[in-house]
Amino acid sequence: MVVNATQAVPHLTTALTGPLKIIESVILDQQARIEAWFRSQWRRTPAPFYASVDLRNAGSKIAPIDTNLFPGGFNNLNPAFESLCIQAVQSAVERLGTPVDRILIIPENHTRNKHYLENISALQRIFEKAGFEVRLGSLLEDLSERMEIDLGDGLSVCLEPLQRDGASLVIDDFKAELVLLNNDLSSGVPELLQGVEQLIKPSLNLGWSDRLKSVHFGFYRDVAGEFAAALDIDPWLIDPMFRNCGEVDFMKREGESCLSGNVDALIDAIQKKYDEYDVACKPFVMIKADSGTYGMGVMTVHSSEEVYELNRKQRTKMATTKEGQKVTKAIIQEGVYTHETWAGPGTVAEPVIYMIDQNVVGGFYRVHPRRATNENLNSPGMYFERLAFDECCNSPDREQSPDAHPNRFYTYGVIARLALLAAARETKNLK
Amino acid sequence: MVVNATQAVPHLTTALTGPLKIIESVILDQQARIEAWFRSQWRRTPAPFYASVDLRNAGSKIAPIDTNLFPGGFNNLNPAFESLCIQAVQSAVERLGTPVDRILIIPENHTRNKHYLENISALQRIFEKAGFEVRLGSLLEDLSERMEIDLGDGLSVCLEPLQRDGASLVIDDFKAELVLLNNDLSSGVPELLQGVEQLIKPSLNLGWSDRLKSVHFGFYRDVAGEFAAALDIDPWLIDPMFRNCGEVDFMKREGESCLSGNVDALIDAIQKKYDEYDVACKPFVMIKADSGTYGMGVMTVHSSEEVYELNRKQRTKMATTKEGQKVTKAIIQEGVYTHETWAGPGTVAEPVIYMIDQNVVGGFYRVHPRRATNENLNSPGMYFERLAFDECCNSPDREQSPDAHPNRFYTYGVIARLALLAAARETKNLK
Repeated sequence: MVVNATQAVPHLTTALTGPLKIIESVILDQQARIEAWFRSQWRRTPAPFYASVDLRNAGSKIAPIDTNLFPGGFNNLNPAFESLCIQAVQSAVERLGTPVDRILIIPENHTRNKHYLENISALQRIFEKAGFEVRLGSLLEDLSERMEIDLGDGLSVCLEPLQRDGASLVIDDFKAELVLLNNDLSSGVPELLQGVEQLIKPSLNLGWSDRLKSVHFGFYRDVAGEFAAALDIDPWLIDPMFRNCGEVDFMKREGESCLSGNVDALIDAIQKKYDEYDVACKPFVMIKADSGTYGMGVMTVHSSEEVYELNRKQRTKMATTKEGQKVTKAIIQEGVYTHETWAGPGTVAEPVIYMIDQNVVGGFYRVHPRRATNENLNSPGMYFERLAFDECCNSPDREQSPDAHPNRFYTYGVIARLALLAAARETKNLK
Repeated sequence: MVVNATQAVPHLTTALTGPLKIIESVILDQQARIEAWFRSQWRRTPAPFYASVDLRNAGSKIAPIDTNLFPGGFNNLNPAFESLCIQAVQSAVERLGTPVDRILIIPENHTRNKHYLENISALQRIFEKAGFEVRLGSLLEDLSERMEIDLGDGLSVCLEPLQRDGASLVIDDFKAELVLLNNDLSSGVPELLQGVEQLIKPSLNLGWSDRLKSVHFGFYRDVAGEFAAALDIDPWLIDPMFRNCGEVDFMKREGESCLSGNVDALIDAIQKKYDEYDVACKPFVMIKADSGTYGMGVMTVHSSEEVYELNRKQRTKMATTKEGQKVTKAIIQEGVYTHETWAGPGTVAEPVIYMIDQNVVGGFYRVHPRRATNENLNSPGMYFERLAFDECCNSPDREQSPDAHPNRFYTYGVIARLALLAAARETKNLK
């Protein structure tokens, strides 16, 4: 595959690159120290098996806004990254410390979502090329026999009914040593998966039915604080502030005062930081379902009044998330502008970084032609652009300027790994 | 970097691909089994820190002919492989089991060999990008202060005098946790390196002053035999037969009868195999210094008579190898034709595969416009062609034919790893 590097790199609004260039310069200058810091962190807290992290690059700051421990989207990675993924998968499996030759992947139940199935196909291919036998065990209740789904371009996936054999998950006589979840368990842990003796990664209690964004970002706050102290920078430059509300019912308008109070407090705090760094933008916050995913249950708010003025349609959208799960907790997170645009101004872009084990293996831009710089891009109409290979996130180049593409992508890889480390601590804490 | 894949792939003489296609088919079909086999091997015997392996692809067989545990030539790898090297280096260092942040590389003393210095520069860059502090400690006796050597294209290397501080190797106040040898210690282990308490990789007793090719190929014979049994193929298809002579003096014509006897026996054995596989070529053997390197002390022979008919010039060439080391032992190895040619017939090519830890990270073709298909290509006039990225050796593609490039290169990676495993056993045996 031949990639045109010029074409594949988005345009960053230059008026706002000042402070970001500071972060990038610090990160580039202290690269050996940063990697030494990560090495010591991973020795203490092993990285999750895999993850993807959504970042927002506002020029004035760069921060993770979501960490997915059941990453989809492997189909959106540049094929040139495949060898890197294969090698990373081999080391991730080796780190498990138990011999693994067969892997059972449990996908989401979206049999009509071609993009998701392409992700599963890409994931299966990576593991097969890494030398494992891989089969897809579906949780679909009405699946009684193997289902081959043609994806075009010679690609297909074969979903098979997941079965139990005593304490083992099997597909007929295929018994894997590793069960890999690519299903975020939004509706809780199905009975079929309970009491299984096989190794399951990520851990069952990391599903979105148990996990809270506010807990993750609490760990991230610690990580960002330690990292910023080590580098002598203001942690705000890499950390989105947040608050949370524990009892919310958007339909019944319960918890509104908690929400609005937190919105006002956050907007004030952001404005102070904007003043400190001469950021001329209007502060905003994101209200998100604390255990939501798939970009559902997310809303941009500029003031507490907006919380009270929500109409019925907006309330309905916020009240439930994936698989109809009811939203009862919310996180109010500092909104981070994305000042990256794709193919000229107008098409807003945010980077998504993929990691396997402790390795950054690639990423892409999520772009949205109909969203503003302060809106959630994870919504219908979005599409993806691959990062070109030359800009793989582990290959900084000191000979170039701090905002040159390999260096900017290295910075992305560093911030994404901070979120990965937060997830690692979150995981360790659950055990 | 944009690589033209068509251009970057050599032409293989098709008349002889029959049996090779069999090996490639078997390897491709049993990929998961092969990788499972390697995983179990690496659990028992960890791979050397790094290595390069020269292969010969005769169509009828494919075999390693040299395994270098102090690989030069990192500058010849496709820059597109750099991320793979960075990741592999990070995992190789992590496997050492002790925290490493600083690395001291000990290069060869070739300060006038620009290609070698480019290799050192490439190696240093990989380790630096992987997040280590790296300095180059030279063994040059007349080096009293740091020497910056400009390599053009913005590249340079800085050699510094290696010093001792008690039981540690240092450069001024730089004390590394890992000492990485890129010097094959042909003249033995210098006093400066003896009794050092730091971790030294590869082990000092793997230098060519101690190592014997015949020992390595003895281990390789075992490895190839086990692998062939697991795959149910004839081990000869991947293993060059050899014999060795322990007391040889080319100048004094001592050991000639051992040499000539072994040459005849080998030629006979090869002819039998050629008959079995309908190979219409003339058998030949390579006589090599048993502890030689740099392609020195190597000669092609078709019959025992040639051993007796050597002229003075030929004897002188065989009598000494790198750094004037006297040749007293010889290995007589089955000659493997290379039927790969670059840019059409006439320019003979052989693949060289690079590994870091247990990972194949790339490779290139060594090509020689003035050598025949049965000659040593590691000689003045050779040059290198990079394998294109799409053909990285860890990414087989079952949708394509067994001799398609990604699959052929995967096969190369498998055979090279067999040699790596032989070196691992050799290393373990030394301890």
